[in-house]
Amino acid sequence: MTTINDHFLKLKAGYLFPEIGRRVNAFTDSHPDAKVIKLGIGDVTEPLPEAIREALHRAVDEMGDRDSFRGYGPEQGYSFLREAIAENDYTSRGCDVSADEIFVSDGSKCDTGNILDIFGTDNTVAVQDPVYPVYVDTNVMCGRTGQADDQGRYAGLTYLPCTAENNFTPEVPDHPVDLIYLCYPNNPTGAVATKETLKKWVDFARSNGSIILFDAAYEAFIQDESLPRSIYEIDGARECAIEFRSFSKNAGFTGTRCAFTIVPKTLTGKKSDGSSHSLHALWNRRHCTKFNGVPYIIQRGAEAAYSDAGQQQIKELVQFYLTNAKILSEGLSSIGISVFGGENAPYIWLKTPDNMKSWEFFDHLLDQAHLVGTPGSGFGASGEGYFRLSAFNSRANVKEAVNRIKTLMG
Amino acid sequence: MTTINDHFLKLKAGYLFPEIGRRVNAFTDSHPDAKVIKLGIGDVTEPLPEAIREALHRAVDEMGDRDSFRGYGPEQGYSFLREAIAENDYTSRGCDVSADEIFVSDGSKCDTGNILDIFGTDNTVAVQDPVYPVYVDTNVMCGRTGQADDQGRYAGLTYLPCTAENNFTPEVPDHPVDLIYLCYPNNPTGAVATKETLKKWVDFARSNGSIILFDAAYEAFIQDESLPRSIYEIDGARECAIEFRSFSKNAGFTGTRCAFTIVPKTLTGKKSDGSSHSLHALWNRRHCTKFNGVPYIIQRGAEAAYSDAGQQQIKELVQFYLTNAKILSEGLSSIGISVFGGENAPYIWLKTPDNMKSWEFFDHLLDQAHLVGTPGSGFGASGEGYFRLSAFNSRANVKEAVNRIKTLMG
Repeated sequence: MTTINDHFLKLKAGYLFPEIGRRVNAFTDSHPDAKVIKLGIGDVTEPLPEAIREALHRAVDEMGDRDSFRGYGPEQGYSFLREAIAENDYTSRGCDVSADEIFVSDGSKCDTGNILDIFGTDNTVAVQDPVYPVYVDTNVMCGRTGQADDQGRYAGLTYLPCTAENNFTPEVPDHPVDLIYLCYPNNPTGAVATKETLKKWVDFARSNGSIILFDAAYEAFIQDESLPRSIYEIDGARECAIEFRSFSKNAGFTGTRCAFTIVPKTLTGKKSDGSSHSLHALWNRRHCTKFNGVPYIIQRGAEAAYSDAGQQQIKELVQFYLTNAKILSEGLSSIGISVFGGENAPYIWLKTPDNMKSWEFFDHLLDQAHLVGTPGSGFGASGEGYFRLSAFNSRANVKEAVNRIKTLMG
Repeated sequence: MTTINDHFLKLKAGYLFPEIGRRVNAFTDSHPDAKVIKLGIGDVTEPLPEAIREALHRAVDEMGDRDSFRGYGPEQGYSFLREAIAENDYTSRGCDVSADEIFVSDGSKCDTGNILDIFGTDNTVAVQDPVYPVYVDTNVMCGRTGQADDQGRYAGLTYLPCTAENNFTPEVPDHPVDLIYLCYPNNPTGAVATKETLKKWVDFARSNGSIILFDAAYEAFIQDESLPRSIYEIDGARECAIEFRSFSKNAGFTGTRCAFTIVPKTLTGKKSDGSSHSLHALWNRRHCTKFNGVPYIIQRGAEAAYSDAGQQQIKELVQFYLTNAKILSEGLSSIGISVFGGENAPYIWLKTPDNMKSWEFFDHLLDQAHLVGTPGSGFGASGEGYFRLSAFNSRANVKEAVNRIKTLMG
């Protein structure tokens, strides 16, 4: 008799964004004429940069000629892309990351979930709270937690509350933890980490033999040149950190799908007999066995993100979204709403007015202003009473959203 | 202290194809002028059909206009593709499969590995032997086996030997098994299953509460109209089977990446308390949590495979490779080599001459004829003494390969 993975049944309700989708669909079904503006899911809205589209077209043409046709590529990604990443994102910033430590993939969501395959189920796990739900749910699925309590906190996980009181920057735990998820610039709070903050985490990890899973999907939004863009800017990170990056939010690849993960060859984990083993070798085996590479066409598109034209076009895209963030931030502040983030990140994190619960505010904003955001509590118990607005939208929609909020609450 | 997943260390040597790659690279490094012909890995060689390239170009252009730009799509795939699949591959052949039972993905390799996430680790597993190594390795990784013996057989797995003696068609086991992998047309042997054969498996699975994981990646190569192309042509399969399909081998997508998996809503598995749960719901949760969909551009390419022009171009591609298979098969037979498969499949499975071991024959063919094939033993202990040649190559290379084999062994 075939049995299921019981751990799946511990998962609470739907994954956050499908739940939002259901509520929005219900609203639009009953209000077909409402002009709903979506600032909820962190999905980009502007066209793929021209340099990238040109590269995609060229690659499609290559597939039409048997001499330039590409079948199976290296599972880890083509050298042309891995080398462009190493050079542009790491070597040029003084980080010691080589091309063969870079694993090209179809998304950071996939990678942050799949990386768990190589670790023992007995590892303890720490997450920031609020947090990108995938980190938690994928650990629930593979049995690293108990049941959830009525606030949605799973037994066995270490939650690191991030609230206005600690400036959304938690201290390191007072007990050892094996796997630590950090996301900077942060989704959902928009908080950033200084070198000093990351240094504390690297020191903590090294003294406890922990591994940091560092999600840097939003690094392109960092404007403050004193802030680190990669955890490998911190001494010792090669001994304790895996970094996740994506083309989704900088180059507009949410629907085009390309990302990468850095697993330094210097990282090790323990077998149950106490012997040390290379995490790079384990991930390489996992990647080659359960993945078959990103489409050649898409990899050529990602490569073009590093051309001079691509870099310029991406910079303009990022500035466009950051200006949206500024408009949202200033508009909300002007009517007395407390806002955070949005300066080095595409997210505005706000305190709900009148102490409304997050989902209450969600429904209020949808019903009364036809605006969609993301309830803070959907990201974790410490997100209750907060709300996320995304800067990913057209300028006109962002301005209209601010006007509607001012009308509703100003 | 971070621990690793110890089960990974049970895996034998390299995954088969990387090992072949290493030996070929070593040979070409020391023989830079040798014109090596590769009939090893089952990788297509001919251009992407024109109808598909045209659709890809159109989709790239759509990404350049904010009104037609696509960000995150449905994780399960766009309706336009799911509906095209349901209609063309299933409804039109009388199979009861609906669009929302189809999960579009980036590859059958990924899906056959990832599907294991939703099943308990206590399930017993049966595989054909020889077998596509991914089925075995992914089960090893998640702890459903013990150690391998010196023939590479893992403790705890049920191996179903497929040899010339049973016409590469094993009987159902004499004991219950929970998860059963079947691949027809078979990789690597090229064997096919009649409706009667599949009926035996469906009956076995239903009487034991087993789930069949049916890999139909090569269905497009079936020429004999009496053979089933889908397991859902068999009564009762909706109660016991998951089917995997791919665009890799019919439409030439090995480097373009698109596949799909059918999980009928009628399938259930048991929780440890004995209650029944929908596998469709579990897989949907897994797919939405750990995957973010196939690139929009690529899904438009896959959709074009179902247009009239796409269907015609794919038919021509399949016929081209099957003619290659015939040339290989007839050439080898003419010098007394026993060959199997190749009629409804793109693989020739041959008995090595002079009772050579599979890897011995591999090295012999590479050294003496500069030909690359795949050692049968790489697919499992019962593949020892066999060898796989792929029909995926140019006509000129296939003819040249036959000539070289005739010269070497004729």
